[in-house]
Amino acid sequence: MIKLFEYNWQVRKDWFGWCGEINPDELLKKRTGGLGYILPTLYHIAAVEYGWICGGIQGKEIYIPPFDEVASLKQVIDFSNRCHEEVAPFVYGWSDSFENRVMIDITDDGEEEAHAWGEVMRHVIVHEIHHIGQLSVWAREIGEAPVSANLIGRGLFG
Amino acid sequence: MIKLFEYNWQVRKDWFGWCGEINPDELLKKRTGGLGYILPTLYHIAAVEYGWICGGIQGKEIYIPPFDEVASLKQVIDFSNRCHEEVAPFVYGWSDSFENRVMIDITDDGEEEAHAWGEVMRHVIVHEIHHIGQLSVWAREIGEAPVSANLIGRGLFG
Repeated sequence: MIKLFEYNWQVRKDWFGWCGEINPDELLKKRTGGLGYILPTLYHIAAVEYGWICGGIQGKEIYIPPFDEVASLKQVIDFSNRCHEEVAPFVYGWSDSFENRVMIDITDDGEEEAHAWGEVMRHVIVHEIHHIGQLSVWAREIGEAPVSANLIGRGLFG
Repeated sequence: MIKLFEYNWQVRKDWFGWCGEINPDELLKKRTGGLGYILPTLYHIAAVEYGWICGGIQGKEIYIPPFDEVASLKQVIDFSNRCHEEVAPFVYGWSDSFENRVMIDITDDGEEEAHAWGEVMRHVIVHEIHHIGQLSVWAREIGEAPVSANLIGRGLFG
């Protein structure tokens, strides 16, 4: 579990570096599929991880700024870093005994939904990888090589 | 670990169903990013999972047909199912005690590389999710809704 979060955090950092190398206009240009824009996708990834883990599982009072409040690369990186400071201690403190604990989510329709913590954690992992796959297509549309998605070779396993 | 494989297998099956609903020409039309084609991507996902887990970790003699030998939706589904029959028992037999066992990979350059089994298994999980993210963009380019990537709500956690 922890290794997959570490993978996501490393890949996200690589994508922030990638974003810094291309024309900033490309980061906010409308594209097909997913959320339709590169920078809002990276913002969304950080917000969803933070929302589920700190707001949902931990039940903290959290504030997620709308994208308009953090609509530059530097601000999205700062936002992601702030989220990470709160998310990481929980991830590193993960225990198998947490798997079946239950959190209650309030859906957009106001319905209550119960989810096992283990399900939420895996949902968050998959969510980021899926959106990063979309970024890889958009990168090629711009004519740039995407960040490598390989997990092997990142030094995550010492 | 097992839940993420189950997620991938369920999503892959959903994509095979999706492929059956669209014009077959779309499955082999050249696109931007990733492997550049929908059906070869699904073939590649199955082949990579089979190659690492059955050929690599288990050290079995395996045969992976070139794409040209299975170049229809039905044949790719059959290939994926054949791989799955060999992959699934290993995944369901996974034990934390396997994490640090080591397999030797021979790279395309003939170099030997050692990988922990736990690293390989996570690489395979991430590999599929990443490529599925690419399919989701291509689906929208065709004007179709992609298969849902949500892990929550798939009934994987009973």
